[in-house]
Amino acid sequence: MSATLTTTLRASYDDTVARVREALAGQGFGVLTEIDLRATLKTKLDVDVASQVILGACRPELAHRALVAVPSVAAMLPCNVVVRDLEDGTTLVEAADPDAMMSVLDDPDGELAAVAADARTRLDAALAALTEDED
Amino acid sequence: MSATLTTTLRASYDDTVARVREALAGQGFGVLTEIDLRATLKTKLDVDVASQVILGACRPELAHRALVAVPSVAAMLPCNVVVRDLEDGTTLVEAADPDAMMSVLDDPDGELAAVAADARTRLDAALAALTEDED
Repeated sequence: MSATLTTTLRASYDDTVARVREALAGQGFGVLTEIDLRATLKTKLDVDVASQVILGACRPELAHRALVAVPSVAAMLPCNVVVRDLEDGTTLVEAADPDAMMSVLDDPDGELAAVAADARTRLDAALAALTEDED
Repeated sequence: MSATLTTTLRASYDDTVARVREALAGQGFGVLTEIDLRATLKTKLDVDVASQVILGACRPELAHRALVAVPSVAAMLPCNVVVRDLEDGTTLVEAADPDAMMSVLDDPDGELAAVAADARTRLDAALAALTEDED
């Protein structure tokens, strides 16, 4: 099982972060949280990792549907989209796959699976929109 | 499979949020992100859900070990701890189980499983510390 959806862009890290935000907004995802992992680990541990940010994406309608069906889903929200500098002129975009994330929860009525499938379709579309911009 | 670690306190929502922060700090977890789900859904959708917050907890040493082993783990970070008002005089604390979260990723060397087990032990201890305070 692959637990993430990925695409790689021939673009700088900063450009990619900006494009990912736009692509997520285009699919109705707001970015509720943002963790600069490189800065956090430098500050806390004085170690160096590649530039990378964890964007916590949330489409409120989907989050609400999921919460009503299975309140425990809150512990799996928001949907993380990571942008990581591969330091070879390309940048990786890697989203947690909602299908995989939701598969660990009990889902007696199948509603969570339906929400996850919708979220996955929209994340796939956001990632596809990124590569459509490439030559 | 249960994908979350839970405990319920006979305490108000606000008190519980404060105690959870202390208990996480006691186990070396910083809170990197915070989503007030009730406020977010009220603002975005004008719907009412119980008071609940998603705290994104991170122990930097564990995050770094996990990242070195399997970079894709970034999409599963931080470890969410949800505090939800059950509106009956009790408050639920529900953490994503690191074992379950990491189980969806390939882990060829077993390093991720070791980190997840450590994180789970510490989250269990944080939740246990909360109930030790109860009469």
